[in-house]
Amino acid sequence: MRISGDIYYQGEWHKGESEGYQALDPASGKSLEPVMSAASEVQVDTAAQAAAEAFAEYRNTSLTERAKFLRCCADEIMNLGEALTDRVSAETGYPTARAEGERARTCGQLRMFADYIESGDHLDARIDTAQPDRQPLPKPDLRYVNQALGPVAVFGVANFPLAFSVAGGDTASALAAGCPVVVKSHPSHPGTSELVGRAMATAAEKSGMPAGVFSLLRGDNAVGARLVQAPQIKAVGFTGSFKGGMALHKLANERPDPIPVFAEMSSVNPLVLLPEALKDSAETIAKGFVGSMTMGTGQFCVKPGLVLALEGAELEAFLNAASEQLQQTDAGVMLNEGICSSYDKGLTGYLNQDFVQVLAQGREAQSEQGFHARPTLLRTRAEDFLKHPEIHDELFGPASLVVVCKDSNQLRSVLDTLDGQLSGTIHSTQEELAHHKALVDLLTAKVGRLVINGFPTGVEVCPSMMHGGPFPASTDARFTSVGTAAIQRFLRPVCFQNFPEPLLPDALRDSNPLKLTRVVNGTLSQEAL
Amino acid sequence: MRISGDIYYQGEWHKGESEGYQALDPASGKSLEPVMSAASEVQVDTAAQAAAEAFAEYRNTSLTERAKFLRCCADEIMNLGEALTDRVSAETGYPTARAEGERARTCGQLRMFADYIESGDHLDARIDTAQPDRQPLPKPDLRYVNQALGPVAVFGVANFPLAFSVAGGDTASALAAGCPVVVKSHPSHPGTSELVGRAMATAAEKSGMPAGVFSLLRGDNAVGARLVQAPQIKAVGFTGSFKGGMALHKLANERPDPIPVFAEMSSVNPLVLLPEALKDSAETIAKGFVGSMTMGTGQFCVKPGLVLALEGAELEAFLNAASEQLQQTDAGVMLNEGICSSYDKGLTGYLNQDFVQVLAQGREAQSEQGFHARPTLLRTRAEDFLKHPEIHDELFGPASLVVVCKDSNQLRSVLDTLDGQLSGTIHSTQEELAHHKALVDLLTAKVGRLVINGFPTGVEVCPSMMHGGPFPASTDARFTSVGTAAIQRFLRPVCFQNFPEPLLPDALRDSNPLKLTRVVNGTLSQEAL
Repeated sequence: MRISGDIYYQGEWHKGESEGYQALDPASGKSLEPVMSAASEVQVDTAAQAAAEAFAEYRNTSLTERAKFLRCCADEIMNLGEALTDRVSAETGYPTARAEGERARTCGQLRMFADYIESGDHLDARIDTAQPDRQPLPKPDLRYVNQALGPVAVFGVANFPLAFSVAGGDTASALAAGCPVVVKSHPSHPGTSELVGRAMATAAEKSGMPAGVFSLLRGDNAVGARLVQAPQIKAVGFTGSFKGGMALHKLANERPDPIPVFAEMSSVNPLVLLPEALKDSAETIAKGFVGSMTMGTGQFCVKPGLVLALEGAELEAFLNAASEQLQQTDAGVMLNEGICSSYDKGLTGYLNQDFVQVLAQGREAQSEQGFHARPTLLRTRAEDFLKHPEIHDELFGPASLVVVCKDSNQLRSVLDTLDGQLSGTIHSTQEELAHHKALVDLLTAKVGRLVINGFPTGVEVCPSMMHGGPFPASTDARFTSVGTAAIQRFLRPVCFQNFPEPLLPDALRDSNPLKLTRVVNGTLSQEAL
Repeated sequence: MRISGDIYYQGEWHKGESEGYQALDPASGKSLEPVMSAASEVQVDTAAQAAAEAFAEYRNTSLTERAKFLRCCADEIMNLGEALTDRVSAETGYPTARAEGERARTCGQLRMFADYIESGDHLDARIDTAQPDRQPLPKPDLRYVNQALGPVAVFGVANFPLAFSVAGGDTASALAAGCPVVVKSHPSHPGTSELVGRAMATAAEKSGMPAGVFSLLRGDNAVGARLVQAPQIKAVGFTGSFKGGMALHKLANERPDPIPVFAEMSSVNPLVLLPEALKDSAETIAKGFVGSMTMGTGQFCVKPGLVLALEGAELEAFLNAASEQLQQTDAGVMLNEGICSSYDKGLTGYLNQDFVQVLAQGREAQSEQGFHARPTLLRTRAEDFLKHPEIHDELFGPASLVVVCKDSNQLRSVLDTLDGQLSGTIHSTQEELAHHKALVDLLTAKVGRLVINGFPTGVEVCPSMMHGGPFPASTDARFTSVGTAAIQRFLRPVCFQNFPEPLLPDALRDSNPLKLTRVVNGTLSQEAL
């Protein structure tokens, strides 16, 4: 399929009216064809208006129609074939296996939401039947069901060109909820975004969805800002940097009508290594840790960026094994020049501190072209860490900082200073874990996900996933951006009081035609009334 | 029980360090004893810190312990006896029956949340079991459960001195969730607030809850602002004016770590009267409408403030009946001087417009003392309403504006210009309603609750209630402040990955010791694993 550099709204492809640019292959630094045009302010406004117009129709589509549309999106993405995975690799430096794996996850998410909305569980249907004779006042018939919130703006992220971009988790969950989506694609992978956009556009058309149910824009931060300020937009999904997420959050809250921004932003994902676990398996843990920290050139939001451990022979054995492992690791390609230079700058900041030592580094890059990063393992003492907040922030890329603690109390003090996190991990024996209840409780209060004897990278897509966490991991700790619960961001309940039964939404009819599990007078029921 | 004028934090009563004031009886305008002291900035900070310290213990209390505490709160409020209802009447002008009814609702809410958390449904427990042999990667064991968000600031509201104040819905739902509460009580009813605070303090002590689980502050807007800015506070519950809610929302979002503000603010609650319904029962509807608009001197957030109807003989019959009814209605006491003067000023604004006519007014106040409002029914034409946004806003008090529309299209245009609403109401025959699908759809998109052939006042407390709505009805349309779903504002999910089964929270243990209904591998189950 040809990449034109166009953008998509009102059900058609258009040349963007703002100045265009070309993507770069980050492995070589070379430009990729074609020139990608960018949206003007008027084009952003038009897309937002088209989404609002589509909403009136799309919110009333049946769950079956919507599920069919989502499955068709997945099919059309697969139909792009190698043109898609090749372009992903060209624009990100990711190997084919990663591109294929991410494509599978993306299509899996679309199909998962199709299945999930067909179950109707997201509707949270509730019925309280009337009690006309109740004293002192009669009780009316009340029925409650979730409805779509409104058009959603979705921002693509650099490090997941498929799974958190044009047809990623935010788009899939918003469309599943019944909300039209306007995507502001990420500038790093415009060709990938267009290909996926073409698949989405074809799927919308084939499924008979209203023009405006899906739009694909491209451009700089001003395009994103304009979109978040558009009065038709009712929520924002974002994954990316703290700075970017907070800028959108500010804009959204300064609107005359503030809207929620679900931004997944910043996390160092502390990894706590307890001594008994290290005694048993220092080498295995070291191997897993280095793999997790360097996977995807460390460009994961759940990369373990901070290791907390007690001083002693067990820790030194672990550090030796990890250092050895890291020294055999190649430099990796980073996604773009900005991310690469941030990594270099951040790392230099650490290296300039006399209280931070380099434990080990991976191999240097073989090429002088493109954007490469050298994996690096750093070490500091807890007392220095506590004194220096400048080394507490996330360093996006293949680096991790080991904080050596004198005892459990000091380790808990370090944890206590940390901000909210997407994930926290503990390596320990079961007996050891049982003795560290305070540590577990403290870490639980800081994170969205607690991992035992594993690594935080590899975020499973399922009902039990929580990908989000206390600020600044995300702007709202109450919501996940991965898994079926992600749909809850884009729904709002409506209560129908004394509504004529034949005119109620199907989810609330006496006969329960959708075969939902509903809360009837406070009790779960799958029956008709 | 003696009212001291003190405030409560760290499990003790203290004299407030800021300048005090006396409450007024709004019926007479006379001061009420004693002088009520106000919190200093240091006292606000101390209360917030005490709440954070209590959180570490309170969040880990069992559901049974927490339910017992909530029931004990209800018992202690009842134990206050007539001292409480008398003080409510003195501080608000509400008759005894209203004070008693609101007390019943308040205690009912506390007991409802006790029952609800014992069911464990709010935990939303989910389990996805491991698949160690899955290709290409093994699936870990993942378990998801809601946990308490953190200390919550609750703002009491003028018009519900019990049900939306110290021990009202926000407090009950936050405590049920496992969140300590710091109340900033409303200046209009400080004595009522203290009495309820004393009941809460006694209940906390009797139930062995940590000091700091509940605090009661008093003071001006600066006290509220300081509380919302306290880093220990993680969410805010507010009911009141648009101006007040938005001020808190702004403060909360300008914090280094933004927190959610659940503010229920502003709504005109449109009432649509279709001709067939009026033909059948103009008089009955008129009587119900006047009762709803003047109940509590019109000081309800769901007072029907706007009536939309088609011109014609049916409407004139309704208006005649409503006018007659209103003329027989007494002036009512308003809650305080500020609310009374806002009503007078707002009403004068309407009366000064030559496109607004007075249809009828209630009787004038008999007393020159105190704060009284005269019920007023106004009329305008749809074309004038559409031209004049200055008459679109809520007028808090016993007034309502009838907008006369030429036809259904014009009626929908008027609806289309309205902001988000807590409620919308339609009076119609079932046949008529079936013919107005576009109207129903439009109104549904604007409101949190849709009422058919009833009146919006009287908000039932139950699982199916939605009290909230699109902005500016509330700051976040996704949440209700009434009913069991209100607890969702104060919970966040945590995911446990490969956690040793014996150390998991009870809600996630294989044996299902809490007998919860859980989502196990995507399917609801009440069984052990």
